[in-house]
Amino acid sequence: MKGNLKNESKTALINAGRRIIVEKGYNNTGIQEVLQVAGVPKGSFYHFFSSKEDFGIQIINCDAEEHDKVLEQYLSNETLSPLNRLKHYFEDKCQEFESLKCREGCLLGNLGQEMADQNEAFRTRLQQVFAQWHDRFADCLRQAQTAGEISSQWDARQLAEYCHNSWEGALLQMKITKSPAPLKAFITLTFGTVLKG
Amino acid sequence: MKGNLKNESKTALINAGRRIIVEKGYNNTGIQEVLQVAGVPKGSFYHFFSSKEDFGIQIINCDAEEHDKVLEQYLSNETLSPLNRLKHYFEDKCQEFESLKCREGCLLGNLGQEMADQNEAFRTRLQQVFAQWHDRFADCLRQAQTAGEISSQWDARQLAEYCHNSWEGALLQMKITKSPAPLKAFITLTFGTVLKG
Repeated sequence: MKGNLKNESKTALINAGRRIIVEKGYNNTGIQEVLQVAGVPKGSFYHFFSSKEDFGIQIINCDAEEHDKVLEQYLSNETLSPLNRLKHYFEDKCQEFESLKCREGCLLGNLGQEMADQNEAFRTRLQQVFAQWHDRFADCLRQAQTAGEISSQWDARQLAEYCHNSWEGALLQMKITKSPAPLKAFITLTFGTVLKG
Repeated sequence: MKGNLKNESKTALINAGRRIIVEKGYNNTGIQEVLQVAGVPKGSFYHFFSSKEDFGIQIINCDAEEHDKVLEQYLSNETLSPLNRLKHYFEDKCQEFESLKCREGCLLGNLGQEMADQNEAFRTRLQQVFAQWHDRFADCLRQAQTAGEISSQWDARQLAEYCHNSWEGALLQMKITKSPAPLKAFITLTFGTVLKG
């Protein structure tokens, strides 16, 4: 295969894998199905990935990279106060999930739930990625503390992790109830109680 | 089979199923494996359950019933104030997960994550069970509001759902980091910010 075609096939496989895994889970996803959805010839999978595990890790890396860019964009938006940058991020995510009919949830959260007890490579990679998100949130919350938008009583890193965990739990409840109400309540209560002046 | 033996076999299958599913997930659990772990003869599965789905629903019902009793016991403990009953529940759960080496998490949360987009019977049953838990939490928080332990600014049912969701998210982070720290931070921050006077 030529270089471009090769890259296109790899990207198609990763994108198909993401779409299927976020709906059905990693264990429940077959490589055959991924090849079919991607429209990539049988047998080429092991051209790009050394194993299904390697495929999973590359999907995590891809998702983490994209999401990190999104987070950076929201949290460095200087037209808003630090606290409002974070709020705006969650509000837009809420709309995104509403448009997805409250399905899927967070790919990396789903994989963490499914795989953390089963596969150390997945677990440690997901731990790293989540720690990076928490660093970004914490940096923003530290700025909100400096600006006097929220109390400095609590450690910004601990607040960041708490907020992200609560969001993941709200996503679970969104999936179960097929309603965006848990995400909206997350925003109301997190910004009305946890992140307060 | 005699009645007693029949009940014993069914209980053994449900218990084995719970243990395997909480670790590996529903889709990743085979009936053969359940029969082997339960020590129940091949072929008897469909004696007790009409399908794997029926088996899953009966496991949910069993877990829900047991957990409801546990919740009732904690939340009706009149030797503690309403707020401290809830705190005591989460503190004991935290110790329980520490003793499990931060594995497994919440069986019904795990099933919700894995199955809510895949199976309507699972999704609606889990929605009902979680709503019952939220009712119990809300009842306790209403008492805490009446006793003046927490502010009456927020609706007790909304606070209940928020706290449970945040707990589920903290369990996910516990699984990923293999540390009880997220559960401890959940207790500190929930009772230090969300559930306050």
